[in-house]
Amino acid sequence: MSWSNTAWQQAEHIYQKIIAMPFIQELIAGTLPQEKFKFYIEQDALYLEQFGRALALIAGRAHQTQHVLDYTRFAEGAIVVESTLHASYFNTYNISGLAKPTPACHYYTSFLLSTAALAQVEVAMAAVLPCFWIYQKVGDYIYGQHQVTNNPYSEWIDTYAGEEFAQLVAKAIDICNDAAQNCTQQQQQAMADAFEMGCQLEWLFWDSAWRMETWAAKLI
Amino acid sequence: MSWSNTAWQQAEHIYQKIIAMPFIQELIAGTLPQEKFKFYIEQDALYLEQFGRALALIAGRAHQTQHVLDYTRFAEGAIVVESTLHASYFNTYNISGLAKPTPACHYYTSFLLSTAALAQVEVAMAAVLPCFWIYQKVGDYIYGQHQVTNNPYSEWIDTYAGEEFAQLVAKAIDICNDAAQNCTQQQQQAMADAFEMGCQLEWLFWDSAWRMETWAAKLI
Amino acid sequence: MSWSNTAWQQAEHIYQKIIAMPFIQELIAGTLPQEKFKFYIEQDALYLEQFGRALALIAGRAHQTQHVLDYTRFAEGAIVVESTLHASYFNTYNISGLAKPTPACHYYTSFLLSTAALAQVEVAMAAVLPCFWIYQKVGDYIYGQHQVTNNPYSEWIDTYAGEEFAQLVAKAIDICNDAAQNCTQQQQQAMADAFEMGCQLEWLFWDSAWRMETWAAKLI
Amino acid sequence: MSWSNTAWQQAEHIYQKIIAMPFIQELIAGTLPQEKFKFYIEQDALYLEQFGRALALIAGRAHQTQHVLDYTRFAEGAIVVESTLHASYFNTYNISGLAKPTPACHYYTSFLLSTAALAQVEVAMAAVLPCFWIYQKVGDYIYGQHQVTNNPYSEWIDTYAGEEFAQLVAKAIDICNDAAQNCTQQQQQAMADAFEMGCQLEWLFWDSAWRMETWAAKLI
Repeated sequence: MSWSNTAWQQAEHIYQKIIAMPFIQELIAGTLPQEKFKFYIEQDALYLEQFGRALALIAGRAHQTQHVLDYTRFAEGAIVVESTLHASYFNTYNISGLAKPTPACHYYTSFLLSTAALAQVEVAMAAVLPCFWIYQKVGDYIYGQHQVTNNPYSEWIDTYAGEEFAQLVAKAIDICNDAAQNCTQQQQQAMADAFEMGCQLEWLFWDSAWRMETWAAKLI
Repeated sequence: MSWSNTAWQQAEHIYQKIIAMPFIQELIAGTLPQEKFKFYIEQDALYLEQFGRALALIAGRAHQTQHVLDYTRFAEGAIVVESTLHASYFNTYNISGLAKPTPACHYYTSFLLSTAALAQVEVAMAAVLPCFWIYQKVGDYIYGQHQVTNNPYSEWIDTYAGEEFAQLVAKAIDICNDAAQNCTQQQQQAMADAFEMGCQLEWLFWDSAWRMETWAAKLI
Repeated sequence: MSWSNTAWQQAEHIYQKIIAMPFIQELIAGTLPQEKFKFYIEQDALYLEQFGRALALIAGRAHQTQHVLDYTRFAEGAIVVESTLHASYFNTYNISGLAKPTPACHYYTSFLLSTAALAQVEVAMAAVLPCFWIYQKVGDYIYGQHQVTNNPYSEWIDTYAGEEFAQLVAKAIDICNDAAQNCTQQQQQAMADAFEMGCQLEWLFWDSAWRMETWAAKLI
Repeated sequence: MSWSNTAWQQAEHIYQKIIAMPFIQELIAGTLPQEKFKFYIEQDALYLEQFGRALALIAGRAHQTQHVLDYTRFAEGAIVVESTLHASYFNTYNISGLAKPTPACHYYTSFLLSTAALAQVEVAMAAVLPCFWIYQKVGDYIYGQHQVTNNPYSEWIDTYAGEEFAQLVAKAIDICNDAAQNCTQQQQQAMADAFEMGCQLEWLFWDSAWRMETWAAKLI
């Protein structure tokens, strides 16, 4: 069995929990309060900037020249999507862009950056994979369930269910499978654990958007 | 005004919230449930190991030779304290040592490691400072308030209120003040922000021990 | 005076030595022995791969989102040029591509990678600048001096004297000037020193191609 | 066969070249010109400072807590030895301590720092090993050959032939063997290659001291 199949099995329970979350279900139904969607978009932009940095660090540490190129382009893509969010949703919803990262957003990006900078590079590749793969799976699930006609979030839903994104995700999975073949069983387990951790933080990110999370220590 | 004074002013509101937390107040009163203290000690051991790594990374990036030596010794100290916890409290309370880091513990150490690896080294020095300084201030506060005679946590309370720890903290503060003098106003602000973030994560760490935090995505 | 002007003044003596080198003068005259040119191209491909990694690491550590994007694209460019060398000169000259880096090549890329990974990011930006700026200056000098008609290296000479490369270089200089404005005098000096070191290693790289450098410890 | 035996076999030809070098032979004979010894000591102090940083970075990235502690103490040791050089030989020989690193010194430390920061941590452990192991072997060789009675370098020679240093080296080798057991064949080869590269740079360092190396680009 390929590494990606094993890793997915280990993390699938989290995927199941994500698609059952109220944020996802209300996105599908089109009933998600606009303020929660706005909150999510603003945090997503903050997330993507750091995700881009993590991908660039992996590019800088990848063994194969082709992977340097692949992760460089993934990084470029993340920053371009971040800019696109500003040019589209930030405009549409009149988002100020002055938000600070929530604990969930900052936690997730701190995990990605520390892993990309310090861990075995194959483990770092596995850590950033959920943002490709879970997103695609969740995107496909939402796309398959939603009613296009009267859903205010149709445009957003289309983005992550497209063929272009699917090819990107397939490449990211392939690279991880290649990388895993040069790893011991123990190192492959470390990769799977990093993947699972990324999936948990995906869950936390959606959850924090639903809760419109704030810094408890500042408010209490 | 020295950098450390400015930074403390920015973060003092968090210190005030920390000393008012139920975990701290019940430590002082000696009424803290033992299972919460055990939970805290186990996470603290996990924290210290990563804190030691972050300090070693700063040693590897410090500009002055003396600071390489200082942070190397800080790192050694953190790992030695971690071992001491195992030899003392882990034994006394029969703690298995098989716990995984809570989200709060993992978040805090991911922040320290990513900052130590990637940020301007002076900012990294400021990010690790709360674990010295806040701990001493909280330790002194607890020591000043508690009744020694019948408090089951007296031994622990004595540790962070000692003269030896005070000298360590004074050195860590001095180094940050030295480092700040070679920084622009903007860089000093980044240092103060990293210090404040560390203080918030100190709050979160105590809070998570009180809540005996678990991974929501795994349980729900 | 802008940082780049100051830095150029500090390093100009090395530029003057580079354009006087036999490798450069024989490139201009078209008399450079083909084996030396082949040797140079092969090492240049090895260099560009690591240069791309260093640029990606800087992308991962840059403060401004725009700079993350810029250095990501610089990195992508370096790897693409490396591939182009394989597809063109490696073919033309029947280069095997199995060479190992010379000491000069390995030294230069070790300097770039350690600086990109560990130094203040502004200093890292200055360290990679010579490969843009010195190359352009040397390229312009060669282009201005050489006889197109019977020079076997005309195609190569045209590459670094083009408008496209000039725009890339202008952007890399502008970013360094921007970055320097957020630095203290001492930090700007560290940037200039890193730039000068990069220029010296450019000299060493040309020199090693002329000498067709080998690993002395292996041969003696 | 243990990893260290395999790695030594791969690199032994360099060890053989090192002990035949004029610098070593004249150290043994006591005929080494004092200006060359002074030059070496001054560069060694510059080297040790960066070696200490590389060891601290490995401490920050090691998987096992015990190894974090070991490399932290190695790092501390390197910086303490560096200080000792200042307090002894710098005084005795009236060395100013204002020297800049030679190309050989800067090359070697750039290799160690880039590897410590970016490579798989087991490979980084192998890269720093020659400075322990080759030094001990060369030290033992010199100690076994020299005449104590009238050798002006006796004190220095005693340092690296002592039991204390031998135990340090044995620990560094053991850690690498432990680390290698968690690596694939290909990763073990990468470790051996990094070890061999370190040995070559040991050779280059001695060679540069004999040549009293300067920066060619600055002087020509």
